[in-house]
Amino acid sequence: MSGVVVTGCPRADLTDVDRLAGYGVATVHEAIGRAGYLGAHLRPILDGLRIGGTAVTVLCQPGDNLMIHVAVEQCRAGDLLVVTTTSPSTDGMFGELLATAVQARGVRGLVIDAGVRDVADLRRMRFPVWSRAISAQGTVKATAGAVNVPVVIGGQVVRPGDAVLADDDGVVCVARGQIEAALEASAARAAGEVEGRAAFAAGQLSLDRYDLRPRLTELGIRYVGAEDAGRDEGAGG
Amino acid sequence: MSGVVVTGCPRADLTDVDRLAGYGVATVHEAIGRAGYLGAHLRPILDGLRIGGTAVTVLCQPGDNLMIHVAVEQCRAGDLLVVTTTSPSTDGMFGELLATAVQARGVRGLVIDAGVRDVADLRRMRFPVWSRAISAQGTVKATAGAVNVPVVIGGQVVRPGDAVLADDDGVVCVARGQIEAALEASAARAAGEVEGRAAFAAGQLSLDRYDLRPRLTELGIRYVGAEDAGRDEGAGG
Amino acid sequence: MSGVVVTGCPRADLTDVDRLAGYGVATVHEAIGRAGYLGAHLRPILDGLRIGGTAVTVLCQPGDNLMIHVAVEQCRAGDLLVVTTTSPSTDGMFGELLATAVQARGVRGLVIDAGVRDVADLRRMRFPVWSRAISAQGTVKATAGAVNVPVVIGGQVVRPGDAVLADDDGVVCVARGQIEAALEASAARAAGEVEGRAAFAAGQLSLDRYDLRPRLTELGIRYVGAEDAGRDEGAGG
Amino acid sequence: MSGVVVTGCPRADLTDVDRLAGYGVATVHEAIGRAGYLGAHLRPILDGLRIGGTAVTVLCQPGDNLMIHVAVEQCRAGDLLVVTTTSPSTDGMFGELLATAVQARGVRGLVIDAGVRDVADLRRMRFPVWSRAISAQGTVKATAGAVNVPVVIGGQVVRPGDAVLADDDGVVCVARGQIEAALEASAARAAGEVEGRAAFAAGQLSLDRYDLRPRLTELGIRYVGAEDAGRDEGAGG
Amino acid sequence: MSGVVVTGCPRADLTDVDRLAGYGVATVHEAIGRAGYLGAHLRPILDGLRIGGTAVTVLCQPGDNLMIHVAVEQCRAGDLLVVTTTSPSTDGMFGELLATAVQARGVRGLVIDAGVRDVADLRRMRFPVWSRAISAQGTVKATAGAVNVPVVIGGQVVRPGDAVLADDDGVVCVARGQIEAALEASAARAAGEVEGRAAFAAGQLSLDRYDLRPRLTELGIRYVGAEDAGRDEGAGG
Amino acid sequence: MSGVVVTGCPRADLTDVDRLAGYGVATVHEAIGRAGYLGAHLRPILDGLRIGGTAVTVLCQPGDNLMIHVAVEQCRAGDLLVVTTTSPSTDGMFGELLATAVQARGVRGLVIDAGVRDVADLRRMRFPVWSRAISAQGTVKATAGAVNVPVVIGGQVVRPGDAVLADDDGVVCVARGQIEAALEASAARAAGEVEGRAAFAAGQLSLDRYDLRPRLTELGIRYVGAEDAGRDEGAGG
Repeated sequence: MSGVVVTGCPRADLTDVDRLAGYGVATVHEAIGRAGYLGAHLRPILDGLRIGGTAVTVLCQPGDNLMIHVAVEQCRAGDLLVVTTTSPSTDGMFGELLATAVQARGVRGLVIDAGVRDVADLRRMRFPVWSRAISAQGTVKATAGAVNVPVVIGGQVVRPGDAVLADDDGVVCVARGQIEAALEASAARAAGEVEGRAAFAAGQLSLDRYDLRPRLTELGIRYVGAEDAGRDEGAGG
Repeated sequence: MSGVVVTGCPRADLTDVDRLAGYGVATVHEAIGRAGYLGAHLRPILDGLRIGGTAVTVLCQPGDNLMIHVAVEQCRAGDLLVVTTTSPSTDGMFGELLATAVQARGVRGLVIDAGVRDVADLRRMRFPVWSRAISAQGTVKATAGAVNVPVVIGGQVVRPGDAVLADDDGVVCVARGQIEAALEASAARAAGEVEGRAAFAAGQLSLDRYDLRPRLTELGIRYVGAEDAGRDEGAGG
Repeated sequence: MSGVVVTGCPRADLTDVDRLAGYGVATVHEAIGRAGYLGAHLRPILDGLRIGGTAVTVLCQPGDNLMIHVAVEQCRAGDLLVVTTTSPSTDGMFGELLATAVQARGVRGLVIDAGVRDVADLRRMRFPVWSRAISAQGTVKATAGAVNVPVVIGGQVVRPGDAVLADDDGVVCVARGQIEAALEASAARAAGEVEGRAAFAAGQLSLDRYDLRPRLTELGIRYVGAEDAGRDEGAGG
Repeated sequence: MSGVVVTGCPRADLTDVDRLAGYGVATVHEAIGRAGYLGAHLRPILDGLRIGGTAVTVLCQPGDNLMIHVAVEQCRAGDLLVVTTTSPSTDGMFGELLATAVQARGVRGLVIDAGVRDVADLRRMRFPVWSRAISAQGTVKATAGAVNVPVVIGGQVVRPGDAVLADDDGVVCVARGQIEAALEASAARAAGEVEGRAAFAAGQLSLDRYDLRPRLTELGIRYVGAEDAGRDEGAGG
Repeated sequence: MSGVVVTGCPRADLTDVDRLAGYGVATVHEAIGRAGYLGAHLRPILDGLRIGGTAVTVLCQPGDNLMIHVAVEQCRAGDLLVVTTTSPSTDGMFGELLATAVQARGVRGLVIDAGVRDVADLRRMRFPVWSRAISAQGTVKATAGAVNVPVVIGGQVVRPGDAVLADDDGVVCVARGQIEAALEASAARAAGEVEGRAAFAAGQLSLDRYDLRPRLTELGIRYVGAEDAGRDEGAGG
Repeated sequence: MSGVVVTGCPRADLTDVDRLAGYGVATVHEAIGRAGYLGAHLRPILDGLRIGGTAVTVLCQPGDNLMIHVAVEQCRAGDLLVVTTTSPSTDGMFGELLATAVQARGVRGLVIDAGVRDVADLRRMRFPVWSRAISAQGTVKATAGAVNVPVVIGGQVVRPGDAVLADDDGVVCVARGQIEAALEASAARAAGEVEGRAAFAAGQLSLDRYDLRPRLTELGIRYVGAEDAGRDEGAGG
């Protein structure tokens, strides 16, 4: 699919995306069945952010950011750029000038499975970025790639128009057709978490709250006093 | 040793642990003979913390946090959870609800050779964590492991009740039976550092302070003027 | 070249180094032809710093910081210590006492392709460090290495007296003989960036500003409407 | 999609798959537009194999091979097992007994983004395996996963029934609907390679054969005699 | 414990060690409760070996093989050298001359969590080695370490005199006091494998042989025909 | 230095290079002061090779092998291609057709800090390759780089015309001007190894042969009987 720019992609509804983002990445990821997480290697350049947007996807040759320049034209308010490369790279493919350009179009942030640079400027602009690396290493603008085709990051497919949510825990993608279900499941999960939080703060054990003790019996877990545990057992780990 | 929960483990004396923590991880690690350091891959989620506690150890299957839930019941005030997995994992095995539960029991923090999540919440709660990764990736509660058996992190054995100290430099473990010796050696070392700091600030060279010049001679180190050093030597490194 | 300490090395002019540092690492790296970047693995211990200095280079055995002690004596105001090891290491080879010693001599900071420790103290002192790791793991003072010989970090040669610049994007080295050219090229590039920034903020596309559309045609890039793009294409990435 | 076993999946035509495998992984990967390669981390346990088959996909919890046992029943002659885990693992999830079981059903081999064991036996049986690791570390049979759902390895989607080809260069996946096109493109490419091989053996330069010299001019590449190239240039890389 | 050489360590009985080695690493590792495996990063330099021996343990500073030289004197017939370093290293710490020396004393092989060199010679001598790396990088003989103290590799403790077994699947350690139990459990497991192998070759499913179908029901695993499975589900993995 | 092809580079004398190669990589690396080793990550695609040649160096953009095609024209009999990229890559940049082309010109082999492909063919041709990876992932021919400029691999500078030697232990580079010295030092070292080998085979200890016992005393190494060593010491490593 190299050499293609798909235009006019339908987007997830922004109001829905924003409501979903409010639940946080970990809660949404659990609510949709422990799915869609893009991996622990994507870290934010600023702490304390929590954003959502609709994906404009970009597939680049490593060391070449031509297709990001192409993608800018396809962005509109509420979008979030999602960039990956055809083989692994940490080069700094995106910096302050590109951030200025996309911010002017209402783009909410960047998720990139490669490097960014000018991070001091990006932090000053409070432009949200989740990346695999920070690197001053520059790139060329020479090779074809694709815009708005499905891409894969951390083993998860991101399609143009999907909801992409990001906070201090990383990035999760929710397929456009599953947002309503995700909203319901997240609301239910968040409600349960409110109650659980109160119970745990009051001293209830999760062993009891989640009724895990029968499972322990089933697994044959034995409780042994320290005085009987023996001193010479090897170390596991 | 899978399937065992050891109860009623003796702990190191908390007053001693707190005094030891005050010296800092690097100083204690040096004082006990450059030992007990759990590795550079464990990083804090907050800067500027310095804590100590008595280890409650947890051995989990990767992708499964059942035994952390089991461990909560074994925790008391002054403890510090030390969690590892039977093979490497970065999954987010611990989050805000578990932190709420253990904070209610007086647990001082978490050292985990795997991932944590809900880090925005954990930072808000100022709950101290040193981990290998931050990851929203969720886990199951399905498989037996062990609580309060010796575990190994970064090639170091941590036994239940041992003193575990952590700050911006990482985590060090001091065996329960060696704390007194560690306190003495750390005090001596810290005293030496006070004097050294003053001397270095005043311009003394460590070559002289540590009497290293005879060692340089012994090693055959030569001083050569730049004009004689030649321009065309290959690069080392 | 082990066992050599080169003395009296000529340094790049400090006024020039400071002017160059002002342009930032990414801009200078681009201006000198996308060269001299020491790699994305070197990260600062403090955000928001931007410094430059003249290199005093140190080559150590892993786990042994003897030659850093030797190097201190060779440092003068405006220098920046650049340390590497003969094989990879993350041990904490440099801490607060050494920082105190070199700060007393006017050294501006440390670039180390290994670990540092006492980072809480180093941050308090605002001593600038770029390192591969933070680690309390201590080192010995036993083995010969070299001071002020060419060293290699991230595949780049750093020679004593070269200009070394560092900020949030990492570290770049500019050879002593190329600083004038680097200043000119950086000034030109920075001027262009000022205009570009204004144009992008006003909504101009980089496709147009850099005249990239003919290149897209040449590469055979096709624009396809989403309705024609097909739903079942495999995922790239 | 955890907890699902999809039965009766349509498969790519085996005659086509075998013809495609004959071209080799690198040629097919190039012919389909440099796509479908599962990554350099998957290595064969035997050299000199070249096989193809239709994918039966398996998604497991790390450290748990229950779903491979479930998948065996879904296999038939000509299939190739394609196994991945929900988060990274090197555990030995597959050994001689499972190989005996699937060989009895006509399965042609295994591609696993995790570990295998009993490799001495597997080599004796000449059972083809491409894996991320060799590891004796055993696994449990405790947790739900999925069989014959789309899985992702090395950023590429593998769907049940797709053609999977493997040789000493690694593994490539061709979607069921694209095999005819892949056969045509591979045949064309292989024909070109025959001619190219003869020409290169006879001394023709690829610069001339592929008409690359105008591109060099366009890129501004200069030829400089060694005597003019200067001795003191810094090292790139 | 640096600076200590423990002499006259009791060894596991060699006849027992040899019988245990005969079962293979994977079988013994399973039989002793999925324990003792030293990790997938240790690979043999020759295929098809299967050996066992009694551990002589060595703890070295990275880049320094002094303590291996010290250890040679402590070796006797039937021993196996087990070497690790105080922090990670891939340097070539052991080569043909050391192999000649230990072979003259009846040492059966080497397990090293670092690098080896002269591998062409070692292969010619058929000297068995499992290592983390092959590297010509030489080392010094300068720093104290320890011989015959407990060491940790891959999170497993190896004590002097323990049985260490190695084959194409890697290396496993069995504590001296657990060898009798390991022999019994391995014999039972191997017997079961013989029967299982025959049953699987004859076409029995492991789902039936291990009675896993009730577990599938319990886990809620559903079987769905491909025609009902939907075409548009996202990719897991 | 991008965009430059240096022609007519002087080469090391081939007779000398061949004599040097005969000593083996590890011996030469030691003889020249433990220098010039290109790193443990470069592995041969065939065991048992030992070759030397004169370097033709190539610097490529990752994912782009244009400059290898340019380099072919600069090769002559006795040369060895040494290829690296401006940032890390494992893509398969070199395959059977390029091997055919360079073999026709008398090139002896390839050292590449990236990937190769068509390895089954390369093995059949017995074309020697040392690489970082084996990967079918293809590359483009689009971007400028350089030929016959100094490059850096594994922290070592390789200059055009330098002697590059490779065997099962990896790759070492000897600067053109240092070959005579390297020959002398290697001969001396090899002679010493012959005597050492005989002595060690006859049972002499290296502790005695290298006179290491005084060093042990100096380091304070203590010998302790196992019965006095205590059973409960923590595990190092």
